[in-house]
Amino acid sequence: MNFDMPEHIKPLRKQVRAFIEERVYPVENLLDERDHPDSRPALKRLMQEAKDAGLWALGHPKEIGGGGLPFMDYVLVNEIVGRSEHAMIALGTHSLQDSIMLNLYASPQWRDRYLRPLVDGDVFPSFAMTEPDVASSDPTQLKTHAELNGGEWVINGRKWFTTGAAMAAYTTVMCRTEPGVEGHRAFSMIIVPTDTPGYKILRETPMLGVSGGHYEVDYDNVRVPAENLLGDRGEGFVIAQRRLGPGRIFHCMRWLGQAQRAFELMCARAKDRVAFGSPLAEKQSIQNMIFETAAEIRATRLLTLDAAHKLDKGDPARIEIGIIKVVGARMLHNAIDRAIQVHGAKGLTDDTPLSRMYRNARAGRVYDGPDEVHQVSVAKLLLKGEGAV
Amino acid sequence: MNFDMPEHIKPLRKQVRAFIEERVYPVENLLDERDHPDSRPALKRLMQEAKDAGLWALGHPKEIGGGGLPFMDYVLVNEIVGRSEHAMIALGTHSLQDSIMLNLYASPQWRDRYLRPLVDGDVFPSFAMTEPDVASSDPTQLKTHAELNGGEWVINGRKWFTTGAAMAAYTTVMCRTEPGVEGHRAFSMIIVPTDTPGYKILRETPMLGVSGGHYEVDYDNVRVPAENLLGDRGEGFVIAQRRLGPGRIFHCMRWLGQAQRAFELMCARAKDRVAFGSPLAEKQSIQNMIFETAAEIRATRLLTLDAAHKLDKGDPARIEIGIIKVVGARMLHNAIDRAIQVHGAKGLTDDTPLSRMYRNARAGRVYDGPDEVHQVSVAKLLLKGEGAV
Amino acid sequence: MNFDMPEHIKPLRKQVRAFIEERVYPVENLLDERDHPDSRPALKRLMQEAKDAGLWALGHPKEIGGGGLPFMDYVLVNEIVGRSEHAMIALGTHSLQDSIMLNLYASPQWRDRYLRPLVDGDVFPSFAMTEPDVASSDPTQLKTHAELNGGEWVINGRKWFTTGAAMAAYTTVMCRTEPGVEGHRAFSMIIVPTDTPGYKILRETPMLGVSGGHYEVDYDNVRVPAENLLGDRGEGFVIAQRRLGPGRIFHCMRWLGQAQRAFELMCARAKDRVAFGSPLAEKQSIQNMIFETAAEIRATRLLTLDAAHKLDKGDPARIEIGIIKVVGARMLHNAIDRAIQVHGAKGLTDDTPLSRMYRNARAGRVYDGPDEVHQVSVAKLLLKGEGAV
Amino acid sequence: MNFDMPEHIKPLRKQVRAFIEERVYPVENLLDERDHPDSRPALKRLMQEAKDAGLWALGHPKEIGGGGLPFMDYVLVNEIVGRSEHAMIALGTHSLQDSIMLNLYASPQWRDRYLRPLVDGDVFPSFAMTEPDVASSDPTQLKTHAELNGGEWVINGRKWFTTGAAMAAYTTVMCRTEPGVEGHRAFSMIIVPTDTPGYKILRETPMLGVSGGHYEVDYDNVRVPAENLLGDRGEGFVIAQRRLGPGRIFHCMRWLGQAQRAFELMCARAKDRVAFGSPLAEKQSIQNMIFETAAEIRATRLLTLDAAHKLDKGDPARIEIGIIKVVGARMLHNAIDRAIQVHGAKGLTDDTPLSRMYRNARAGRVYDGPDEVHQVSVAKLLLKGEGAV
Repeated sequence: MNFDMPEHIKPLRKQVRAFIEERVYPVENLLDERDHPDSRPALKRLMQEAKDAGLWALGHPKEIGGGGLPFMDYVLVNEIVGRSEHAMIALGTHSLQDSIMLNLYASPQWRDRYLRPLVDGDVFPSFAMTEPDVASSDPTQLKTHAELNGGEWVINGRKWFTTGAAMAAYTTVMCRTEPGVEGHRAFSMIIVPTDTPGYKILRETPMLGVSGGHYEVDYDNVRVPAENLLGDRGEGFVIAQRRLGPGRIFHCMRWLGQAQRAFELMCARAKDRVAFGSPLAEKQSIQNMIFETAAEIRATRLLTLDAAHKLDKGDPARIEIGIIKVVGARMLHNAIDRAIQVHGAKGLTDDTPLSRMYRNARAGRVYDGPDEVHQVSVAKLLLKGEGAV
Repeated sequence: MNFDMPEHIKPLRKQVRAFIEERVYPVENLLDERDHPDSRPALKRLMQEAKDAGLWALGHPKEIGGGGLPFMDYVLVNEIVGRSEHAMIALGTHSLQDSIMLNLYASPQWRDRYLRPLVDGDVFPSFAMTEPDVASSDPTQLKTHAELNGGEWVINGRKWFTTGAAMAAYTTVMCRTEPGVEGHRAFSMIIVPTDTPGYKILRETPMLGVSGGHYEVDYDNVRVPAENLLGDRGEGFVIAQRRLGPGRIFHCMRWLGQAQRAFELMCARAKDRVAFGSPLAEKQSIQNMIFETAAEIRATRLLTLDAAHKLDKGDPARIEIGIIKVVGARMLHNAIDRAIQVHGAKGLTDDTPLSRMYRNARAGRVYDGPDEVHQVSVAKLLLKGEGAV
Repeated sequence: MNFDMPEHIKPLRKQVRAFIEERVYPVENLLDERDHPDSRPALKRLMQEAKDAGLWALGHPKEIGGGGLPFMDYVLVNEIVGRSEHAMIALGTHSLQDSIMLNLYASPQWRDRYLRPLVDGDVFPSFAMTEPDVASSDPTQLKTHAELNGGEWVINGRKWFTTGAAMAAYTTVMCRTEPGVEGHRAFSMIIVPTDTPGYKILRETPMLGVSGGHYEVDYDNVRVPAENLLGDRGEGFVIAQRRLGPGRIFHCMRWLGQAQRAFELMCARAKDRVAFGSPLAEKQSIQNMIFETAAEIRATRLLTLDAAHKLDKGDPARIEIGIIKVVGARMLHNAIDRAIQVHGAKGLTDDTPLSRMYRNARAGRVYDGPDEVHQVSVAKLLLKGEGAV
Repeated sequence: MNFDMPEHIKPLRKQVRAFIEERVYPVENLLDERDHPDSRPALKRLMQEAKDAGLWALGHPKEIGGGGLPFMDYVLVNEIVGRSEHAMIALGTHSLQDSIMLNLYASPQWRDRYLRPLVDGDVFPSFAMTEPDVASSDPTQLKTHAELNGGEWVINGRKWFTTGAAMAAYTTVMCRTEPGVEGHRAFSMIIVPTDTPGYKILRETPMLGVSGGHYEVDYDNVRVPAENLLGDRGEGFVIAQRRLGPGRIFHCMRWLGQAQRAFELMCARAKDRVAFGSPLAEKQSIQNMIFETAAEIRATRLLTLDAAHKLDKGDPARIEIGIIKVVGARMLHNAIDRAIQVHGAKGLTDDTPLSRMYRNARAGRVYDGPDEVHQVSVAKLLLKGEGAV
C-alpha cells in the first residue's frame, strides 16, 4: 500500500497550478461574461499559451495528438485543473471524452474531419442526452428518435443541457433507433453537425443564474448520412457507459480542486477577518468548519483515488464510483458553503469566485443521475455481497 | 392554549394569496429583470391594483395612512406575502419599518416631507448599516462617521448592501458620531437624501447572481442639516434594535411563505414525474424529503408564531427570535434545496422560481448577523437560566 | 392564538415537579435495581405518598376513580412526569390506557374484577402486541392466533416486549381470530390472566442493557372464556388505534421532560467544568450544543402541543402525531447525547441518570413502528393535500 | 500510488477472521459476564488456542517475544481483531502498548519482572491517566501527585477508568512529580503494583451499563521504589504521546472491524426480514442506510490507512490522526445505529451483539479527548498551512 503522490507527477501539477493561478485566475471574470467581445479572444489566447507551455491536451492519447499522460497521472492533474471552471477549455482537456469516442466509434470520414481539429481546440464538440420531459435518472424513457430513410437518419425530438451547442461544430445525439427493442439496447448515438437543417437552438438555460453554455435544442426532421452512426445500432448506451466511469473520476477530481480552492479562501479569510476582538480563525465555530471541510476533502480524495486505481487495474469499480458521485457532490457543496459563511455577505457577491462555485456545485447532485439513484444502485451491489473488504 | 389560525384573518389571507397568485406570479420574471423597460411599469401597475383591492400597506399604523392591522394579524398575512419575492413592494409592506422609524424619530420637516409618500409608495426608503471592511456580526467596528460642522453633519465612509439605493429618495445611514464613546452608544442614524452631493453609488452587488438591488455607496464629505439626525445622538442602535425584533418575525414568516411555495412545487412535481415505472411520489427517498420538509416548516412556523405572540405581549423574546433566525434560514434552504432535487436539472433553470429562491435563501444565514453569532447569544441567555419552561 | 401555559395548571405542574425531584430522584437508582429487595417496597411507598399528596392517577377519568384532569391539562402534566422514568408508576399514570380500554370494551365481569384495582395501582396491566418473528412495522403479519373452542378462546403463539408481564395480573393479547379475513380486521384483543395455564414467561429482554421489565411470553394452548374478548371480533386494531393517538402525545410530552432534564444537567455541567482556563460554558462548541438542544426541544414541544390541541378538538391529527413521533425521538436522543458529551466519560457512567436515559431514548425510534414507516405514512397524507396551511 | 491490500497479509487476516468467528463469537456472551465462573476459564482457553494457532501477540516486537509483524501488516490485522470486543485479549494484542513502554522506559528490575509474563498474557497491565475531577481534554489539570521521600515515590490522588485494574499485576500511573513546573513537563509515569498498600479499588464504573472492567482507584500514600519511574522525571506525557499515535491507528482499525460486522448484520437482516410484501433490502430508506454506512466505512478506512502509512514513514501525521479520531467514532456510531434500526426492537436486546457494540461505540467520542478538542487542534494545524496537498 502506498498513498503517496508519485514524485514524477509533482512538477507537472506544480506547473499546471502556476499556469492556472497566473494566467486563468486573472481573466476568470472576463471569461464568465461570455457575451463580452473580449471574452472569446481571451480564451483563445489562453489556449495558445497552454500549447506554448506544453500543457495542452495532456491526457489525450498520443496517437490522436495528445500528451498521452497515463490515466493515474492525468487523474492527479485533473485535481489541479478543477481549481478554475475555465481551465478545462484553456488546457484542452474538455474534448477528451469526445475525441476518444470519435476515435473508437466514428466512421473514417468523420474521424478525418473532426478528430484533429477537436484535439487541437479548433472545433468544439457537444453531447446531447437528456430531455426536458424525461427523468434523466431513467434514460430508457428518452423520446428523441431516429429512423433510417433513404440512407439517412431522420431525427426528431428535443434535447436540453447540450453543453456548448452554440459554439460546437457537431452534437452527438442519443436517439431511439430500434423501435421494437426494450431498455438500453434501443438507443444509438448519431453525429449531427450543428449547421444541419432542422437543428435549432431554442434557448440557453442558465443554471442558478450561471450561463454555463447549456442549450435546449430542437431536432425537426434533421437528416444526416447513415455513416454518422457511432459504433453499431443499439450500442448507444454501451458507448456512453465507456465515457462514464473515467468521466466521473475526472469530475470528482476537479470537484476536489474546487473544494481545495474554497478551503484556502476560507482559511485566508478566517485569519484576516476580525470580530469581537480576535480573528475568526480563533473562533471554535469557524475551526469546526475548517475541520469538517478538511476531513471531507481528504476522505473524498482518497475514495476517488482508490476508485481511479481500481479502474486503472480493469475493475469497473461501480461501487466506488457510485459512492464518490454522491459523497463528492456533498463535499463540494459543504466546502463552498462554509467558505461563503466565513466570508459573510461578501461571499455571496461577485467579489470572490465563491458565488459561481456555489451555484455550479449544486448541479453535481443532479446531473449524471441524481444522488438518490446512485444510492440505490450502490446499495443493491453491496447487498449482493460485492465490494466486501 | 390555542394554536388555531383565528377565523377573522382567514379571508384576508385568502384574498392576499389570490392577489399574489393571480397578479404577481405571472409577472415575476419580468419584475426580476429590473433593467427591462416594462419592468418598472409592471410594478407600478401591481401597486395600484393592490391599492384598488384594499391590500396596500396593510400593516402600517392607521395614523400614518396604513391599514392598521394588529401585529399578530399582520404576522399571519406576512406568511402569504412571502410567497413571492416581489409581493412586499407590490403590497406596500416594504416601507413599514422605515415609515415607523420616521414617524417616531424624525424631525417634523422630514416627517412631513417623506412620511406620506413613503407609505403611499411614491418614494422609496433605503437603509445603510453594513460596511465592506467590517464584520457585520460585530457592528461596533463600523467606520463610517459623521461630524457636526457648522450646523451640518459631514459624513464620510463606505456602506454596502444598501438595498434599493438606486430608486430611493433617501438613505438612513448608521454613523459613528460620538468619538470618545465605546460600544453601541457611539452611533447615530442620519437621513441622507440620495441626491446630496458626495453620495455616490459605486456599483450594484448581485448576490449569487441575483440582482436584488443592493448597492455599494460612497459617502465623500456628504453634508446634511443637523436636523437629519433620527432621535438623539448615540441612539442609533437603540432605534435599530426597535426595528429588529418585529423585523425578524416578519422575515421569518415570509421565509415560511417561500418554503411553503417550494413544498407545493415539490409535491406537484413528485406526483407528476415518472421514473422507473412509477411517480417520484411513490419513492421512499422522495417521501422522506417531503416528510422532513413538512416537519421543518411546521416546527419553524410554531416557533415563529410563539415568538410573535411573546413579542406582542411585551416580552422581548430574545431567545425565541434568535432561534427562529437560525432555524428559519436552515428550514428555508432545506425546503428549496429538496424541491430542486425533486425537479432535477429543471429545478436549476429559470423555468421554475426555485432558482432565485435558492439563491435568495442563502443570504438568510448571513445577513442580520451570521448564524454563529446568534447561536452564541442565545446560548448565553439560556445558560443564565432565561427561557426555562 | 395563544401559546401561553394556562395559569391554572402551573401550580399542579409545580407540585408534581417538586414531588418528583424530592421523592423520586433520590430513589431512582434503587428503583432501577428491580431485583433488589428494597426496590419494590420503595416503589410502593412512593405510590402511597403520591396518593397522600393528591397526585395519584390524575388523568384517569373521574367515573373510574381517577383525578379527571382534562386532556390538555393532563398533557402538560405528563411533561413533568417524564422527568423520571419511574414517575409514571409512582404517580399511577401507567395504567391510564389500559383502564380506559377495560372500561370501554371489557365484559362486566372483567371490568368489575380489574378496573378498580388497576386504577388504584393494586394490580398491574400488560399489553402484548409485537412478536419476535414479525416486523412490527407491519402488524398484519402477526401470527399469534386464537380459536373459539367450546366457549373458550384457545391461544397459541409467542409475543415479546410485553412490558410488566412479570408483575401484571393480566395481559391483553392481540390475536388473529378471523382466519379468512385480510388485513387489520382479522385481529381481536383478548384478556389473559397471567396465571392461566400455558401462559409462560420465557425470559426478560433488557434493551441496551436496561432491564425495563419487557418479557417474552409463550402462549401454549392458553384457554380463556369467550367473554375475555375486548369489544367485538375483528376490532383489535380499532381498539388499539384508540389508545395510540393520545398515547403518542403523552409519550412525546414525557420525552420532552426527559430532554429538559438532560438539558439542565448539560448546562449545569458546562458552567461547573473548567478546561483550558475557562468553564465549558464559554466554549463555542458547547454553546452550539446548548443552542441546538434548546431549539429542538422548543420546536418539538410546540409541535406536540399543537397535535394535542388538534386531537382535543376531535381532529385525528395523523400528520401531526406522525411528525412528533419521529422528530421527538430524534430530539430526545440529541439532547441526551449532547448532555453526555458535555459530561465526558462521567456521562457514560451510572453517576448521572444520563446513562439510562440515553439507552431508553434509543427505543423511541423503533417501538410503535420505526421512524421510516411513519415518514412514509405522513408523506402520503401530505401528498394527498392533507394538512395544508 | 497503490491502494491494494498487500497479498502477503491476506492469508493471516483470513486465519485471524476464522479464529474470531469460530472460536470467539460463540463464547462472547459468556465472556461478557465477567463474574460468571466459566468466564475467565473460557478466556484462558481462547488465549491458549490462539497461541497454538500461532496467532498470539502478532504485533509485539520479536525481541520481546512477539510475532514481530511490521507496523502496516499489524494495522491491517487489527481491523479483523476489532470484530469482537474480546479478540484483543484472546489474541494477546491488548498488552502491546504497555509492553513496548516497559521495554523502552522501565528499569531493568521491572522489565525483568513484568515484560515476559506481560507478553505471554500471564499478567495483565493497566494504565491510569484520567481523574474524576478533571476535564480529560486538558490533562495538565491532573491532580494525582507523587513526591520522592526516602528513596520512594509517595503517591496520593484518585484515578478512574483504569481499565483492567481488578486483574492487573500493576498500574502505570500518571503523576504530578515536578511541583514548580507548568504544563505537560510537570508529570511522570510510575509503576505501581496493584498489591501495594494504599492502592484501593473503589468501584467498577460500567459505561452505558457495559461492565468493561474500568475501575476507580484511590491512591492513599502509596509508596513505591524510586526505580519505578518510567524514563526520566517530567517525561510522563512524552512517553504517553509515543503510545498515542499508533494507538489511535489501532483503535480506529478495530472500530472499522466493529463497523464492518455491524454492516454485515444489517445487510443480512435487510435481506431476511419482510415487511409490506417485500424484504427490507428493497426499501429505499434501508438502501440509503446501506449506502451511507458503506461510504462512511470506506472513507474512514482509507483515511486511517493513509494516516498509518504516513506514521510508518516517520511523519507524525497529527492532522490525519486527529481526523480519524473524530470521523472514526462518528462512523462507528452511525454504522451500529443503522444496523440496530434495521433490526428493530431485536437490535436493542441481547440477541445480537449490536446492543453492546452500540454502547461501547459511544465512548469513542469521549475518551482520549472529546471530539471537540481534536477538532480545534486539527483546525489550528490546518490554519498554519500544514497538511496542504
